[in-house]
Amino acid sequence: MSDIATALAGAIGADRVVTGGDAFERHRIDYWVLANLRAREGRLGPPPACVVRPRSTAEVQAVVRTAQQHGVAIVPYGGGSGVLGGAVAPGGAIVVDLTAMDALLDVNDLALTATAQAGLLGGEYERRIQARGYTTAHWPQSIDLASLGGLVATRSAGQFSTRYGNIEDLLLGLEAVLPSGEIVRVPAFPRSSTGPDLRQVFLGSEGTLGIVTEVTLKVFPLPEQRVFGSWAFPSMAAGLEAIRRFVRAGWRPPVVRLYDAVETARTFSQWAPEHSHLLLVVSEGPMAMVEAELTAVAAAAGDAVDCGPAPTGHWMEHRNQVPSWDFFFEKKMIVDTIEIAATWDKVTPLYDGVVSALHGVPGMVAASAHSSHSYLNGTNLYVTFAIFPPDFAKAEAGYLDAWTRVMETTMRLGGTIAHHHGIGRLRAPWLVQELGSAYPVLLALKRALDPANLMNPGALIAPR
Amino acid sequence: MSDIATALAGAIGADRVVTGGDAFERHRIDYWVLANLRAREGRLGPPPACVVRPRSTAEVQAVVRTAQQHGVAIVPYGGGSGVLGGAVAPGGAIVVDLTAMDALLDVNDLALTATAQAGLLGGEYERRIQARGYTTAHWPQSIDLASLGGLVATRSAGQFSTRYGNIEDLLLGLEAVLPSGEIVRVPAFPRSSTGPDLRQVFLGSEGTLGIVTEVTLKVFPLPEQRVFGSWAFPSMAAGLEAIRRFVRAGWRPPVVRLYDAVETARTFSQWAPEHSHLLLVVSEGPMAMVEAELTAVAAAAGDAVDCGPAPTGHWMEHRNQVPSWDFFFEKKMIVDTIEIAATWDKVTPLYDGVVSALHGVPGMVAASAHSSHSYLNGTNLYVTFAIFPPDFAKAEAGYLDAWTRVMETTMRLGGTIAHHHGIGRLRAPWLVQELGSAYPVLLALKRALDPANLMNPGALIAPR
Repeated sequence: MSDIATALAGAIGADRVVTGGDAFERHRIDYWVLANLRAREGRLGPPPACVVRPRSTAEVQAVVRTAQQHGVAIVPYGGGSGVLGGAVAPGGAIVVDLTAMDALLDVNDLALTATAQAGLLGGEYERRIQARGYTTAHWPQSIDLASLGGLVATRSAGQFSTRYGNIEDLLLGLEAVLPSGEIVRVPAFPRSSTGPDLRQVFLGSEGTLGIVTEVTLKVFPLPEQRVFGSWAFPSMAAGLEAIRRFVRAGWRPPVVRLYDAVETARTFSQWAPEHSHLLLVVSEGPMAMVEAELTAVAAAAGDAVDCGPAPTGHWMEHRNQVPSWDFFFEKKMIVDTIEIAATWDKVTPLYDGVVSALHGVPGMVAASAHSSHSYLNGTNLYVTFAIFPPDFAKAEAGYLDAWTRVMETTMRLGGTIAHHHGIGRLRAPWLVQELGSAYPVLLALKRALDPANLMNPGALIAPR
Repeated sequence: MSDIATALAGAIGADRVVTGGDAFERHRIDYWVLANLRAREGRLGPPPACVVRPRSTAEVQAVVRTAQQHGVAIVPYGGGSGVLGGAVAPGGAIVVDLTAMDALLDVNDLALTATAQAGLLGGEYERRIQARGYTTAHWPQSIDLASLGGLVATRSAGQFSTRYGNIEDLLLGLEAVLPSGEIVRVPAFPRSSTGPDLRQVFLGSEGTLGIVTEVTLKVFPLPEQRVFGSWAFPSMAAGLEAIRRFVRAGWRPPVVRLYDAVETARTFSQWAPEHSHLLLVVSEGPMAMVEAELTAVAAAAGDAVDCGPAPTGHWMEHRNQVPSWDFFFEKKMIVDTIEIAATWDKVTPLYDGVVSALHGVPGMVAASAHSSHSYLNGTNLYVTFAIFPPDFAKAEAGYLDAWTRVMETTMRLGGTIAHHHGIGRLRAPWLVQELGSAYPVLLALKRALDPANLMNPGALIAPR
């Protein structure tokens, strides 16, 4: 064992420290396609020193303090579902796997809050609170793989966000271990004006400013009614315009998803007309709310083709099924998704711009997008691309070409480069331009809390 | 002129620097009752060096850089409507009055955003965007007195918050001048996951981390319909329970205000039964939404007495009228309000606790509260007290006794000490306990951005 592994074994117990074997190997990468490709091809960099599995906040604190004493980097690791390399540890680092901290600590039936340890996976958390009659109303596609702390650390969005908001709207309180080893607790209040909201330091911090160890989230009573609808539009622009109209009028159906013609044909051809762009809507809540809402959505859809509830029901059933990366690698393909967002005035040109830019990549066989999270002011685009590289040995270059085109096109057309997957290691170089004059504020925050740069170095903030 | 005034005159023009006269005197205090009492009694501390009135972000930058060169403190000053002394400058400081920066820069009809300079007052901003068919949906009682930058810097809440959210939900982008003099711009996106949300550094910063110079806010189309209702309950607990029920079911009427029996008798005795606690509700939006919402509210009100639309209409007309502090001083009284909040499980004991604690202050002639901002997880209490001190020369001691009782009772009963007025100078000593283990994070942020502690020293962060 390395010095640091020995020290950590002394601090929290040898049984909590893993330095080899399958579990160790699994923690060398997360769900980033490029890390998976490199692993498959034996091209990963030097391994981390060890994986530790603390059982308590005190043990996380002991790990952080030990790391500080030894000047060794720390990478927090939740469910490993990040898709941007945020949890891909640099050589020699300590990977802190939080999934042994998976207790549901409290459910408050009056305050409508639940408190859990940060390593609890989202799907298991949802099952436990559903048994109490509640839902978290936060349904990222990764719900069964992602830890609650990871959802907070990456600024996650859920499929029901148009009504319930995203993780920053759902997180009421938290506990975190700072890079110094100090424990910070922010209690759950309905709302405060007690200076800057300190939860925000950790929301989106991706392990660079501390380790989230406990979260208190809103819970919602399970809805009385849930009703599905779908409408087919002749263009993305027409579908986006319909969403903009009903959102502008004040309606917020939980699920609002508009697929372009490529994705509609791929998944919903059974129900939608050829070449159409399909809008799926889920409304839920008291029946009076659902009825009024769906009537308003139908009115905003105008002369779009009503395709009934079936496509939305199909999506609800299959929404979290995705093929493995290996499935594509074996076909000599590389596939990924990129989520961006823009205000309503910019989103249609952005859609056209990124799809068109992707088609310039050699071997690009499909480039498409859907909008899946709508707001008063705009919406996101969830872009999917598939490359069948002329030479698969050069797949990585094509992949980076695709990402570069989308990032640069997004910034040129006034969008934001990340809607809900975060920054990780892949997007870090582009964050400098995205934040622009505000980037030094992020750097100041980082230096203030982690002067030795030991917390997840390379993620979020690109090395100089 | 002092050296600093001369230097500032050189930097931005002598006509922008005020060192005496009525305008100067007015800027020595804000709307904090104690500052007004001290001014009336000639007990203010040493005066600031000067008041400057920059016309542009570049001039704000020049002021900040000049202040840094001379090591002189800076206090940003908007409309002067803060009620906690946040803008009461220490002796020798530079007061930066931002109200000359009052341009509405842009209204985007598709993105539903408006961008304005931070010195524009809220009421004038609302009139200008209403002329374009929009509302900001942010109606603090101080709307005609408060600047947009001040609303951001204090984490303001508006009377229509239960539907539309508070300033942190409405602010999409901003520009600020950092203590270093650097200009930071955060553009308006519907939502991003690009690291910690850097707008949050300035929301609630009360001038201690920079000067907000421009804001981009959501705007909402003027509502199709607006309908009023009111119901009288036998107790605060019963009224709070009704609110909790309809909010839990998913309804969010913009205005939800529950007055205790003291306040109901004071303002609504014409309509409400004796000893009752009156709930006012405003619903607005598409007619179908309004109808469904008011039906649900009425159902949640159960067997409360329906008092019809008139009391709510009365409140809408008179809601921003408040007597001057002098009106009370002349009666030898001191009066103030304290806004706190708690989750639903804690709010009724908190109401009982603070009202009871206030009655222990010698000369307390009235202590009452209403709830005016409700959330899924809880609500606020807007406490009003009136002291007729046995000896008016000791009014300040009685006032501080009242505040101390409410702050300590609130923390003991699990509430938050500030719902929407911020911290200022009055609450700063209690913020240490309120934030607890998170307080060092605020201090780290302060040291990182303002190492010389020149930005509004004494506000938000209490001197050691």
